[in-house]
Formats: sequence, structure tokens, C-alpha cells
Amino acid sequence: MSRRAATMIAVIGAGSCSEEIANLAEQVGAQLARRGAMLVCGGLGGVMAAACRGARLAGGTTIGLLPGASPADANPDVTVPLATGLGEARNVLVVGCAQAVIAIAGEYGTLSEIGHALKMGKPVVGLQTWQIARHGQLDRGVRDVSTPEQAVELALHLAGAPTAPGQ
Amino acid sequence: MSRRAATMIAVIGAGSCSEEIANLAEQVGAQLARRGAMLVCGGLGGVMAAACRGARLAGGTTIGLLPGASPADANPDVTVPLATGLGEARNVLVVGCAQAVIAIAGEYGTLSEIGHALKMGKPVVGLQTWQIARHGQLDRGVRDVSTPEQAVELALHLAGAPTAPGQ
Amino acid sequence: MSRRAATMIAVIGAGSCSEEIANLAEQVGAQLARRGAMLVCGGLGGVMAAACRGARLAGGTTIGLLPGASPADANPDVTVPLATGLGEARNVLVVGCAQAVIAIAGEYGTLSEIGHALKMGKPVVGLQTWQIARHGQLDRGVRDVSTPEQAVELALHLAGAPTAPGQ
Amino acid sequence: MSRRAATMIAVIGAGSCSEEIANLAEQVGAQLARRGAMLVCGGLGGVMAAACRGARLAGGTTIGLLPGASPADANPDVTVPLATGLGEARNVLVVGCAQAVIAIAGEYGTLSEIGHALKMGKPVVGLQTWQIARHGQLDRGVRDVSTPEQAVELALHLAGAPTAPGQ
Repeated sequence: MSRRAATMIAVIGAGSCSEEIANLAEQVGAQLARRGAMLVCGGLGGVMAAACRGARLAGGTTIGLLPGASPADANPDVTVPLATGLGEARNVLVVGCAQAVIAIAGEYGTLSEIGHALKMGKPVVGLQTWQIARHGQLDRGVRDVSTPEQAVELALHLAGAPTAPGQ
Repeated sequence: MSRRAATMIAVIGAGSCSEEIANLAEQVGAQLARRGAMLVCGGLGGVMAAACRGARLAGGTTIGLLPGASPADANPDVTVPLATGLGEARNVLVVGCAQAVIAIAGEYGTLSEIGHALKMGKPVVGLQTWQIARHGQLDRGVRDVSTPEQAVELALHLAGAPTAPGQ
Repeated sequence: MSRRAATMIAVIGAGSCSEEIANLAEQVGAQLARRGAMLVCGGLGGVMAAACRGARLAGGTTIGLLPGASPADANPDVTVPLATGLGEARNVLVVGCAQAVIAIAGEYGTLSEIGHALKMGKPVVGLQTWQIARHGQLDRGVRDVSTPEQAVELALHLAGAPTAPGQ
Repeated sequence: MSRRAATMIAVIGAGSCSEEIANLAEQVGAQLARRGAMLVCGGLGGVMAAACRGARLAGGTTIGLLPGASPADANPDVTVPLATGLGEARNVLVVGCAQAVIAIAGEYGTLSEIGHALKMGKPVVGLQTWQIARHGQLDRGVRDVSTPEQAVELALHLAGAPTAPGQ
């Protein structure tokens, strides 16, 4: 039996979102669990809750790094609720703990996580998320994809994980 | 099926320790896993490694909050390695994420965690750990016990967890 | 004598930069000091060093929130070097401690700070910095200006500080 | 003119305290300022407020690393209020930013700071503070002194600072 820890993928996005975006996040969570990856996120609602729901229903592990001091703040599909008490600084941990990041839509908090991930040299895959540019030139740090399947496939590939279950 | 997250118990102690202390830590880890609790710790060697070994061999979940930025620093029995990159500040998270704390022997880092846990109002159970006093009066914040079984029993009781499996 | 603490303005930008950008940062630092504001930054080189140099030469206070554990990492014009040991998480503190933020050019770390500042509701003024967009629509959270004077004027105005010295 | 930053000394103690303890803290703050050291603390009341008052009245710089997100939480004698938003984790920064630590009486938060300081290898001088022991043996990490003058003298000596003004 191998003791190697599972690949950990961060899913980032806003604490409230449209049904369409929640649907994408749920599919991303489900795919990650089916591929044997652990999901790490900020543990709250919106994109985080939808991704955790998808992952948990598919039997996966979902880690919620909460900003506050109470594990009760976690959405009901977080299996490992971690009450950091660090406020916004927990965003740094969400991406720092992962081997790759999937950004789904998102607000300013998501933007901060994209910045931290790219600064740390972590791969970032985007689904309808922020576009960032300097001097009118689009920055290619965030790799845009069109479907949840593509997002998970690319994130696992860039994280150095096996490209199919069991490999 | 209940979605309530498992009780989380922190095991704190030094990164290197005697065989006798490691033995105690391993039994604490094993008991926690058998009682269905998750173990959270600093993820490194010594007491942390022994407790994780005991818990993992008994089928438990072990969360390692690492000070550095690399999950490879985790001992081999951490099932959820979280590379916080926060240095010593990760000690605050180790106890902050738990409902109760078991301190086994320990050095100055353990002392810092005892202080944080008591400040946060978290129960602390001690096995051969620090004694703290003011004005020559022993402080009773740390509850001393003699065996791993007592430590786990008391920690789970104080954490508000069921007092026997399945209850 | 009033004990009210001075307005604190964060200056954010990359750890290395062109001479042109350093020149802008130095002027921003000088203006802030002349207007009686304290400058808070990440304490390292590039934009941070240039802004501190400008502020210190004008008699100002410069606070450097360093990622590492050694105050010796601070640039020579930091008057209050604070070795946080928090790694990238110190970025959250840089903007969290300020009443307004001036972003000068910048790389991914700067992007993370822009995200955190906007999430916290802090005003962000930009000089040749990141442009951020969603769904092809430019986000107006960062207020672009053209000169160091405009940057300082607008940042102090948005921070709720007096609009001219002595007022 | 030298640009070398001043020696930074942490003063730690509880957020509320007796008049006798406040008196000690105020004298420690005053002595530190007269000796040209900067004072860093948690920025709140009790020992922290008294030490800041002493230091500020003697013309010193007082840095308050606050647990919350608002600089308005600082006591009125903090000249550099830094709202970290990190909760209890700001304790790690208070001692991490200093070259030596003076502990005055104190509660559990102070105990956590003593633990962190000793773990980091920082000198800790104590005035009526915690006594710590293992296996019935008093640990000598905290150096007990009897007066504010002795505390400041020893802390500056151990911090590697000049032993008298101007030297």
C-alpha cells in the first residue's frame, strides 16, 4: 500500500454565485473526486459549497480552510473543516496547499488567490474567471478552458498527477 | 448518513523524542482513530510522526499543518498534508482547528501551543508535559493524566464528543 | 497635542523594477512623507526600496513588513523593519494595515495585494499597474492615475486624510 | 547619519492588569524609549497600554500589532498601529519582530508568546511572569529580574544593543 498523499487541487471562487456557475463548480468537484484528488477550498458558500458537494457525493475528501475561528462556518460538504482564524490570510493557504488551482468565475478574493498562486509558481486553470493584463497585454498566467472536464484534466496534468485513474 | 464532521483533536509535542514518548504518542493516535476522531498536528517528526503512525494504522485521518511550503516535509503517515508556509504561526492553527488538545512531553513550541489553546478556551490534556505556574501557584489549565487511554478519553469528553463508539 | 496616529498608505510593487518605475516610486514616497502619511510596504527592493528612499529622505516613517524572519532583509530606508516570518501571507498585512493603497507597476505579488485590498474595501490607486477584467469588461476597482502627485493626492483623499498639509 | 534601524524590544503581558503591574510596565516602556529602543507589543490595553504610555511620554516609537482589522483598536499611545487581522497568530509576530522580549506578569496569551520566543531563540526577561517546568525541574529559559531597570538593561544586553546611551 502506498502512503503517498493524494494530489491536492484548490478550487477558488466567490462565496455566492449563479446557478450556472455552481453547476460548473459541482462538476469540477465531482471530477476531482473521481480522479482521486483531494479538494481544498475556502470552505464557505457559492463556488466553494458547490465544488464540495460534487466532490463529497463522488466520495472525495474536501478540505475547508475557513477564515474564522468556528468549524461550524463550513459548508455541509466539507469533510475536513479547518478553522484558521486568519481572516483573509487564509486565502494564501488555500492556494499554497495545492499542487494546482482551478479558478471558477470569482470576485476580488479570487483575484487575490490567483495572484498568490502565480507568484508561488502554481499552475492556475480558469473557467470564466478574471482576465489580467499589463500595458494592454493579456497575461497568460491563467490558462482558460471551457468545460469542467478540461479544467480538471489540465489541472491534474499540470500538477504532475497521473492522467487517468489507476495509472 | 450524517454529514457532521468528525471531532478533531490536536496532538502536540516535540519534533524529536525518546522511544518511550513516541510509544505514548502512537497509542494516543491509535485510540483517537478507533474512537472516530480526526488527528491534527504539526505534521513533522517525533511525537507528531508517532501519533500519525498510530492513527493511520488504525484507519484514521491525520492532518499535518506544516510550517514550510512543501508537502514533502510531512511525515509518511500524514494523510492530509497542508503546507501553510506560515512558519511558527502554524502552531496557532494546530490548536485553533481542534476541539481539544493532547500535549505529550514537548519543548518550547509545545509550550506556545498550550498557551494558545488555553487562551482560546480549548481543553488541554497533558501526558508528561509542561507544568506552568504563577507566583509559585501551579496553574490547573493543563489537566494531567497518566495513560494514553485516559488522555483520549478525557480529551474526547471535554471536546463534547460521544464517550463511547457509536453513542 | 493630538495622539491620533498618522494616515498609513501602502505602496505596492515588484521587488525589482526599471529606473523609470523606481523614479515614480521614489516620488510617491517623498510626497507621502511631505503630506505626513506613514508608508507601509513589503520592505524589500525595487518599488519598495525606491518608495522608502523617497519617504525617508523627506523625513517620513517607513514600515517594512518582511516575509522572512530577519530584519536584515529590509532595504536600508525602512525605519521600522518587521520580520513577520509569514512568507507570502505578509502581503495581506501590507494592505490590511493601510487606509489606502498605491500600486506601482508590479508582478503577481502586487496582483495578490490588489485583490486583497479591493476585497477589504480599501481604495486602490494605480500607476502603470495591472488591469483586471471579467467577461471582457474592465473592472474599475483600481483607479488609474498618471503622476506620483495625483496618486498621493487621490490616495490621501480616499483614505479620508486632510487634503493639504496642516489642515 | 546611520541608517541602522533601532533595536526592537517586545513587551508582553495581559490586556488588563493591576495598577502595580501597570506601573512596572510604564517604567519599562519609559526606560526603553530613553535607551533608544523601539517598543513592539500587541497594541491593546493593560500591560501593553501602560508600556506604550511610558515609551511615548519619553519620546519613543511604539508599534502595536493588533489582532483585529481596525487600527482604532490600538491604545492611544501606539504610534504605529498595525491591524494584522490575524487573530491570535499576531502573537507570533510580536515576539518574532523583536530582538529580545520582556514579559510582565501575564495570562495565557503571554505564555504562548514566551513559548514562541524561546522556540525562536530570542532572549526572554521576566518580571513577575510565568514559571515553567518539566518533570519538576524549573526551566531557565525565562530570566527573572526584580525591577524595570534590570529588565530593560538585561533585555538590551541580550539583544546585542549598546549597554548605555551613546555607546
